[in-house]
Amino acid sequence: MAAKLVGNACIGQSGGPTVVINQSLVGVIEEARRHKEIKKLFGARHGTRGIMKQDFLDLFRVPPKKLQVVAATPAAALGSVRHKPTEDDCAAMLEVFRARNIRYFFYVGGDDSAQAAFLIAGMARKAGYEMRVVHVPKTIDNNLMENDHTPGFGSAARFVASAVRGDELDNRSLPGIKINVIMGRDAGWLTAASMLARQKPGDGPHLIYLPEAPFTVEQFLADVKEAYARHGRCVICASEGIRDPQGKLWAETAGRQLADGLKDEARNLFGKPKVDAFGHFQLSGTGVLADFLAGRIKEGADVSRVRADTFGYLQRSFPGFASRVDAREARAVGREAVKYAAKGLDGSVAIKRRPGKAYKAYLELVALEKVAGKNREVPKEFICPGGSDVCPSFRAYALPLVGGLPETAVLD
Amino acid sequence: MAAKLVGNACIGQSGGPTVVINQSLVGVIEEARRHKEIKKLFGARHGTRGIMKQDFLDLFRVPPKKLQVVAATPAAALGSVRHKPTEDDCAAMLEVFRARNIRYFFYVGGDDSAQAAFLIAGMARKAGYEMRVVHVPKTIDNNLMENDHTPGFGSAARFVASAVRGDELDNRSLPGIKINVIMGRDAGWLTAASMLARQKPGDGPHLIYLPEAPFTVEQFLADVKEAYARHGRCVICASEGIRDPQGKLWAETAGRQLADGLKDEARNLFGKPKVDAFGHFQLSGTGVLADFLAGRIKEGADVSRVRADTFGYLQRSFPGFASRVDAREARAVGREAVKYAAKGLDGSVAIKRRPGKAYKAYLELVALEKVAGKNREVPKEFICPGGSDVCPSFRAYALPLVGGLPETAVLD
Repeated sequence: MAAKLVGNACIGQSGGPTVVINQSLVGVIEEARRHKEIKKLFGARHGTRGIMKQDFLDLFRVPPKKLQVVAATPAAALGSVRHKPTEDDCAAMLEVFRARNIRYFFYVGGDDSAQAAFLIAGMARKAGYEMRVVHVPKTIDNNLMENDHTPGFGSAARFVASAVRGDELDNRSLPGIKINVIMGRDAGWLTAASMLARQKPGDGPHLIYLPEAPFTVEQFLADVKEAYARHGRCVICASEGIRDPQGKLWAETAGRQLADGLKDEARNLFGKPKVDAFGHFQLSGTGVLADFLAGRIKEGADVSRVRADTFGYLQRSFPGFASRVDAREARAVGREAVKYAAKGLDGSVAIKRRPGKAYKAYLELVALEKVAGKNREVPKEFICPGGSDVCPSFRAYALPLVGGLPETAVLD
Repeated sequence: MAAKLVGNACIGQSGGPTVVINQSLVGVIEEARRHKEIKKLFGARHGTRGIMKQDFLDLFRVPPKKLQVVAATPAAALGSVRHKPTEDDCAAMLEVFRARNIRYFFYVGGDDSAQAAFLIAGMARKAGYEMRVVHVPKTIDNNLMENDHTPGFGSAARFVASAVRGDELDNRSLPGIKINVIMGRDAGWLTAASMLARQKPGDGPHLIYLPEAPFTVEQFLADVKEAYARHGRCVICASEGIRDPQGKLWAETAGRQLADGLKDEARNLFGKPKVDAFGHFQLSGTGVLADFLAGRIKEGADVSRVRADTFGYLQRSFPGFASRVDAREARAVGREAVKYAAKGLDGSVAIKRRPGKAYKAYLELVALEKVAGKNREVPKEFICPGGSDVCPSFRAYALPLVGGLPETAVLD
């Protein structure tokens, strides 16, 4: 057995938070405490930025009782960051690791964070600085390669499925057309989870649109009219990342058409399409796509009541409503990350599922480069022909992850 | 003791649903079953519309076990309606009541429904048709006169306070300016409840705007800049019914500026301000106000990250998250309505609060005309000077109604 690598550890959180990201943080803290070779655990404020600025918390000093409440608290307790570290950034971080004798680095995040972890691990190896780097998965988008599902997805899916169930009941009460825009730029997993809101035939959502199944406005209108004629109402769930057949984001088209359609003097009022540092068009935190889709229906169909909601940040931050399964798994990936590192391994912790009827998950360490910077789409077999719905088989996949949904019943 | 009025009963639900409106329905069913003088209980589909069309369910036939699930189900189980009945409508309903020997009418709803109940009661009296009419209160807006608070408010307030707590934690993780638009056209009670999200000084929401405290765009921008400078971030909660000093809705200004600012060819895409049958401007089910406020900040302040969410229909329909206090009280007002009617009384059931430190509510029957068509605003003593916040005293008022909030903690 190899000698244990003695030194300090560091953990950071990155990207859009989830309601269980702190379960993983606490999992790392709890397990790290059990390893004598880990002397101190530095919590980096706002991920890589905190490492470079040496803005650290001493996590072994947090009282265990408080940790239990932190674990159940949404959003990154250490603060998060949206910044892809450059080579220079990684070199700067490595210098901090050396200076503080940090021999273990745990980075909680999505595919971008796996990429950062991969860069740092490579640089340390090249520099001959012995350290372990383990990526801890997290994303409500459920889009990490090598994973059956990701921590954060089950809880966000529980929120979305419940919200759509409630919205569907509301729409029964006061019929009309209702559009719900759901998070997920590059993969439609979370939007697909809206199908769990259905309890019997005729229940909404009646139409579900994912980024993986592009469509035209004409198709959309035809679908809506058909569903409205059949049900006398229509609940639609659309991903913020829906695309046209040319691969262009509907949200971008909506934003640009709005900007172009405004007279010069009014452009400042509504019309600045927002593009981030990576050239990503801003999808969340605006109602433009939902209002655009509602506008298309109002224009193209004879329906008096058309409403649109954008679920927004609540999907990733609503407290007190996490999936128990998701919370447990998020804690476990944190603990396992430390165990793998203590065994001398680098990699990304991945959740796998055993085949069989009963839900059973297990964890595995996979190579960082298999996860880094990659996107896992919803596979074709989960999408109905026509592209306006999700197949019933998706229920078997997603239902165990949400840890139960509120019970409801209608009078009929 | 007067002879009991023997005959059938009828119940309807009206207006925007809540997550506990079916508690009141089930309260009426359970209590009505205990009164031998009530032979049948007709459930009218979609309120007054169902009465006129004689679209009824036989509610004594619903199995008690199912009723318990229905009670916990959001949105009107009988269907709802948004229609102010005319004199002719009331005459038509009275004819149905006569034809079906309906001697008890329970109408669950807000101030408009109390108005409808008042009209029907008066018409029955004039026609010499003996019947009891009791209005059962319901509204997330909490704006009924004579009530300390209304069934539906506590649960909506619990959702909003929890959502803002989560959003505040998210904003700590990734700082910036965040706007949340909350329901409430004529009264700011629900928006005010966002203050319950605060746990310690510095916590968001940092600014709270109610319809009762009008403001200019200049004031708004000055408030936001000041809060952002102090906290390095800013969480804003604004009612959909916020107004300028001339009393004009900001949502209407936003909608009209958008419509006027669009070139003719683009008007159909975004620019049709939607006005309902009562001349009310559409506030819910669109992101225009939130995007307009975000636009003002992007234009007037040097902040890179500005996001806006409109909480939308989730506030009144999200399942599995009701306030226990609210659910219990909503059931009780239904039961009491039947008891009052059985005693030979007409009126509106109102929730009152006993003075004293410990929360204690009791029910009282008040005259229909005291509630009908009236709006109860947030009183001045709950609004801070300057109009951009709610006073700490509001916490003592609102906290008992939400039945507990999820526990959260931050690392600092």
